[in-house]
Amino acid sequence: MTTTTRQDAVKKPPKTMVDDLADIVGRERVLVSKPDRLAYQVDCWPRGIIRTRGRDLDHHCPAAIVQPANESEVTGLVRWARKTGTPLVPFGAGSGVCGGVLADETKVVVDVKRMDRIVETRADDMTVRVQAGAIGMPFEEELQRRGFTLGHFPSSIYCSSIGGWVAARGAGQFSSLYGKIEDMVASLRVVTGTGEVLDTAADPLADRPRQMASQAGPDLTQLFVGSEGTLGVLTEATFNMARKPNHRFYRGFKFPDVETALDAIRDMMQAGLRPAVVRLYDALDTLLHKSSDAEKGSSDVPPGLLRNLRKLAFDKVPDAVTSKVREQVRKATHAVVGRVLGNPLALNSLTNVLPKECLLVVGFEGSSPLVEDEAQYAFDLLGRYGLDLGPGPGLHWLENRYNVSYKQSPMYDAGAFVDTMEVSTSWSKVLELYHTVREALAPHVLVMAHFSHVYPYGSSIYFTFSGFGADMDETLERYDATWKAGLDAVASVGASVAHHHGVGESKAPWSHHDHRGGRQAFDALKAAFDPDGIMNPGKVYL
Amino acid sequence: MTTTTRQDAVKKPPKTMVDDLADIVGRERVLVSKPDRLAYQVDCWPRGIIRTRGRDLDHHCPAAIVQPANESEVTGLVRWARKTGTPLVPFGAGSGVCGGVLADETKVVVDVKRMDRIVETRADDMTVRVQAGAIGMPFEEELQRRGFTLGHFPSSIYCSSIGGWVAARGAGQFSSLYGKIEDMVASLRVVTGTGEVLDTAADPLADRPRQMASQAGPDLTQLFVGSEGTLGVLTEATFNMARKPNHRFYRGFKFPDVETALDAIRDMMQAGLRPAVVRLYDALDTLLHKSSDAEKGSSDVPPGLLRNLRKLAFDKVPDAVTSKVREQVRKATHAVVGRVLGNPLALNSLTNVLPKECLLVVGFEGSSPLVEDEAQYAFDLLGRYGLDLGPGPGLHWLENRYNVSYKQSPMYDAGAFVDTMEVSTSWSKVLELYHTVREALAPHVLVMAHFSHVYPYGSSIYFTFSGFGADMDETLERYDATWKAGLDAVASVGASVAHHHGVGESKAPWSHHDHRGGRQAFDALKAAFDPDGIMNPGKVYL
Repeated sequence: MTTTTRQDAVKKPPKTMVDDLADIVGRERVLVSKPDRLAYQVDCWPRGIIRTRGRDLDHHCPAAIVQPANESEVTGLVRWARKTGTPLVPFGAGSGVCGGVLADETKVVVDVKRMDRIVETRADDMTVRVQAGAIGMPFEEELQRRGFTLGHFPSSIYCSSIGGWVAARGAGQFSSLYGKIEDMVASLRVVTGTGEVLDTAADPLADRPRQMASQAGPDLTQLFVGSEGTLGVLTEATFNMARKPNHRFYRGFKFPDVETALDAIRDMMQAGLRPAVVRLYDALDTLLHKSSDAEKGSSDVPPGLLRNLRKLAFDKVPDAVTSKVREQVRKATHAVVGRVLGNPLALNSLTNVLPKECLLVVGFEGSSPLVEDEAQYAFDLLGRYGLDLGPGPGLHWLENRYNVSYKQSPMYDAGAFVDTMEVSTSWSKVLELYHTVREALAPHVLVMAHFSHVYPYGSSIYFTFSGFGADMDETLERYDATWKAGLDAVASVGASVAHHHGVGESKAPWSHHDHRGGRQAFDALKAAFDPDGIMNPGKVYL
Repeated sequence: MTTTTRQDAVKKPPKTMVDDLADIVGRERVLVSKPDRLAYQVDCWPRGIIRTRGRDLDHHCPAAIVQPANESEVTGLVRWARKTGTPLVPFGAGSGVCGGVLADETKVVVDVKRMDRIVETRADDMTVRVQAGAIGMPFEEELQRRGFTLGHFPSSIYCSSIGGWVAARGAGQFSSLYGKIEDMVASLRVVTGTGEVLDTAADPLADRPRQMASQAGPDLTQLFVGSEGTLGVLTEATFNMARKPNHRFYRGFKFPDVETALDAIRDMMQAGLRPAVVRLYDALDTLLHKSSDAEKGSSDVPPGLLRNLRKLAFDKVPDAVTSKVREQVRKATHAVVGRVLGNPLALNSLTNVLPKECLLVVGFEGSSPLVEDEAQYAFDLLGRYGLDLGPGPGLHWLENRYNVSYKQSPMYDAGAFVDTMEVSTSWSKVLELYHTVREALAPHVLVMAHFSHVYPYGSSIYFTFSGFGADMDETLERYDATWKAGLDAVASVGASVAHHHGVGESKAPWSHHDHRGGRQAFDALKAAFDPDGIMNPGKVYL
């Protein structure tokens, strides 16, 4: 196993830099110790995790981390950065999975987590103004105490910031009802790369609705949504809220195959129904679900390989075990994983002979009693395509919906990886996208998928895949080949390469496929808002 | 009466220009005759109509009008314009009310109405791709024949183009359900000012949903929505459709005052209900409504001044009368209007002693039977604030909803004018906006208002006003003073200066109030997409 340990290569930043930064944010808010810089060199991009697990530790160490307390300090930092030509990397909670906050020794990370205040909620306007560093769940819980919800529930809600949601154009698990984050954002405050504060509202005190956000001329708010810190540091966002729901109806359905299930979902969405949650698991993902506790007893699927596979890929080793036991587990896992994932093509082809049944979880919620009729109408409609399993599968999903972001797979220890790829297209191409990407990934990784964000006009597909390499270098090679094959396939279909994880470094070489004039527009915006190229360079577009 | 007749000053364009243009679109598609150029010098901006009625005819005559048949001809025109430095003015149906298509003798108008084809509808994706020059109603009727609706019903639907809808960020009368045009647009094709074709879809054949239109990086589609031809010539748009509704429920309500009515509407919208139509008329507008045929018999309002005022302001002189009679009518009107509108401040203050009752028209529609329950739930909610008048007022509105755009007020002949101003803000500031603008306009014009586009987070206000001047110059002076007072007042409240009429020339001096960094962003986009400044200069931002 090749590991590169170069911790000693992590150089201290120049004293003048530290002094300059301390003048702006205070000395205790300039972090330059080795542990701090190592901690800030990764987000949740699996590629970085693979390198970290392989002890290749200093690949993205920033020169320093600063923790500004307010917008005026952010402005000071950007002006300093312009003067000294030092690139800045805005940083929220570090839960991104595309490497959008990766730095290097020439860059300074600007961690905005101290700016975490709810500035104002306006009940009459159902809007909330919040600082960019607020963490998802405490923020949502406070809104709920006030009788509202943002309606944005990414699986990372406990470990992601609202600035990150906006920067990466996120979607929550209830997006079919409440929309993606870009549908909720009314206006933004940004310290642009010029050092000026830009507020996209007509009046910073007038929390302007999304639908009314951009009357005169082009839509400025939507320029900064999805820009991932490349145009400036987001300091505040104003969101539209909804009333806290007090009616909820969940249901599971079983369909004979993914084609029938997608027809049913399309029919439901095009009838104008507004489910909060729609999650369709493809055949393999459904089988793995069945082997979990959720449907124990109700499943007629043989355990064995698939159940073990699920455990290997997604279950956490209990914390209580000793380190010696953990090491034994790691070695055993490595051997098993290598055997199981060593020939993904064969493994993937197994799905051809497995049952094609698909599980759908669907849920409705709202603040008016009308939602019960709507749910029942939808359940009747879905029942014409598949088998109603009752509320069980839906409620089980509801209880466990945030678990995935906290399970660090033991597979990483075994030189393997787990990752996800969320892409989207219109209904007429969803199946083509599904099959094309599966085929492209099949030689590299074990692949399954679910469809978790659907619209009257199309759907996203969320591929989950696991791959293996004998050592870190081989794992990275396999990882890169997997992504290249996957996104090339997405581009070949004419689908979008990103649905809600953002672009970061990982997808930047493919983002021009999403907008054919995108690069041109991006360059224009960079010239205007980041003339010195100091804002998170190398992200979004390559 | 001062009139300036300078028809002879309308110079012929140089022969080389005509020859160049003929090479691109064919000689019969290059219009240079005096009548043609006079016809294309106005849109429906009342300021232009005042000048035309005053025989001040050649103020915005283009050098020539070209009528390209396809995108490749548009590309040829833009390349020629870059080479020769000739500004182009994209032109749809000329129904805009802000002077967005006004040209002058240095500019060439590009009329896209020949590009009026539905390129493709995709039933599975509920999307339609259509050329920019298609006229609203024939387009909508064709969609309905195919079982769909766009859901966009501006009062100008018979005389506006889909390109104009997108360019001016339009809203239809059913916007509370279907959204504004920016919520329907999935992707755009534009020949930018560089002469290149830009398609904002990942794949021009993949009609990408609005919600999935911009995964990677900033939202490019929304850059061109609202850009009013300043970044390029829009050639095609792909829209999301809805199923054609077959359930409709309309109702009228009477509220004691506008404050109570707005509370009721806010409650309805924030409960998550989705009416298609919400139109609240303020006290004066309600009185004028009552004096119309709609509620004849049911009204307890004295006729007289108000009824006559309504007739003067909004009724059409019958076509059948002879020109001699018309001239007599014109003179009599002039005298009466002068007397009535000569002291708007006194006239406006009359409303202080008039009944404060407000009429609300509300309607629900949809393709599922669920809409009946939703409508009934909403009607019950509204009934807790006001008096249910039954379906009559709603159905009357439905039948007459397109009339206004075809009534050319006889007041123009009398040196007076009628105009509208649509602005918007969040709920907590709606009443402040309403009163501030009314007060600002009161010294200049007779003013009334309705609230016709509402959201859970705020509302637009649609002011209608009538003013008078002894001759054209005085009328123009009054007109300009009215708009300056009105939009200064809007800006002082921190509201948005445009909701759905666009910016054009009329609001360009105020558009920077809508986005404080808007000018900076706009300049950046111009530099990228219109480096030679040939695309509709002088519009959107000043």
